[in-house]
Amino acid sequence: MEIKVLKKVMSANDAVAEEITGFFNEKGIFAVNLMGSPGSGKTTMLEKTIEMLLPDYNIAVVEGDITTTIDAKKLSRFPVKIAQVNTLPFGGECHLEASWIKDAVREFDLETIDFLFIENIGNLVCPAEFKTGAHKNILVLSLPEGEDKPLKYPLAFQVSHLVLLSKVDLIDVLEYDVEKAEENIEKVHPGIDKIQVSSKTGKGIQDWKAWLTEQRKLLFDN
Amino acid sequence: MEIKVLKKVMSANDAVAEEITGFFNEKGIFAVNLMGSPGSGKTTMLEKTIEMLLPDYNIAVVEGDITTTIDAKKLSRFPVKIAQVNTLPFGGECHLEASWIKDAVREFDLETIDFLFIENIGNLVCPAEFKTGAHKNILVLSLPEGEDKPLKYPLAFQVSHLVLLSKVDLIDVLEYDVEKAEENIEKVHPGIDKIQVSSKTGKGIQDWKAWLTEQRKLLFDN
Repeated sequence: MEIKVLKKVMSANDAVAEEITGFFNEKGIFAVNLMGSPGSGKTTMLEKTIEMLLPDYNIAVVEGDITTTIDAKKLSRFPVKIAQVNTLPFGGECHLEASWIKDAVREFDLETIDFLFIENIGNLVCPAEFKTGAHKNILVLSLPEGEDKPLKYPLAFQVSHLVLLSKVDLIDVLEYDVEKAEENIEKVHPGIDKIQVSSKTGKGIQDWKAWLTEQRKLLFDN
Repeated sequence: MEIKVLKKVMSANDAVAEEITGFFNEKGIFAVNLMGSPGSGKTTMLEKTIEMLLPDYNIAVVEGDITTTIDAKKLSRFPVKIAQVNTLPFGGECHLEASWIKDAVREFDLETIDFLFIENIGNLVCPAEFKTGAHKNILVLSLPEGEDKPLKYPLAFQVSHLVLLSKVDLIDVLEYDVEKAEENIEKVHPGIDKIQVSSKTGKGIQDWKAWLTEQRKLLFDN
């Protein structure tokens, strides 16, 4: 009986997600859902991404957090549209649901937006189970989390289209085996795109920009 | 209607948790629930803890993971009892429930155990919502996760009795503000115990041992 309820919730979410994607397609908005553990570097990566895209594109952000507006405030120094979704009023949920994204984007003038970034709740489990309506899911996996995380949290990697291996500036300090991490990602999602990035040194940031703009072009310029 | 179902699940879990605690009390088992983000250092800290306590105490471990037995295998080099709980057969839940702990500890000869460590699923949200029956909740917060995490994920800190600030050997590399992190912990849970630890340098490990043995003594030797 409980499983039935869960399925009902999931398919309702899927339907809203599909509706939102259609809406984004109509308006030419390329929507990206950033997922990752708490502290994996999603917000910092988003700051770098905004800096990089701003000269050429209009950007909006939906910030998901259980509570606080800390991340939204960090982004408020940029000329971007930001909507904050706090899940505490919804039982402190550890994911964003499509209907909350739908409500959030109503805050924006959608005619003018090229890229929409959704920063999901910091969590390697729940967000993977709920579609947001975004065109692409990006998994930010930071080096200090360890090489075994893809094996331990496979779903988040399986539903993603790209893994950003973040904080790679710490490779030497942490004696981290990036190849092992990439191998483990391949095991759970063969052929997925991977980019090593560092907000600190700037490594990989241009590749990430190229990936984003190319994916957008594939979708809207054909 | 859904909220009603949720409450029912929660109170059933609470009842089982209470039952387990009574059982631990009867057998003189001091039970500790380790929570934290993926990659916060729970397993490594557990390895250090086992090394430290083994000469004087008998130890058992319940390893919680969505999938894999990677962590349990790491601990299998020690003469400790280990039971693995994988939640994938239970829908890939991001927390451990009391009834699963109850089943897991049945694997052990409980008469001989002094300390039981429960390593919860790597997650800063869900595990905080489900009692495990442990006497104490320990939150492992690693330096690379950033100073703002207590504000963003307050519940996990509020239900905990001690915060282990882990990977403090990275303070200089990460320009991390430990005082700010401790201030933020105080904001959400005033007066909570805090110990700075590093598995790499050994910092704080003796303080953590003292905390554990003292808490056990308070419970069973009075």
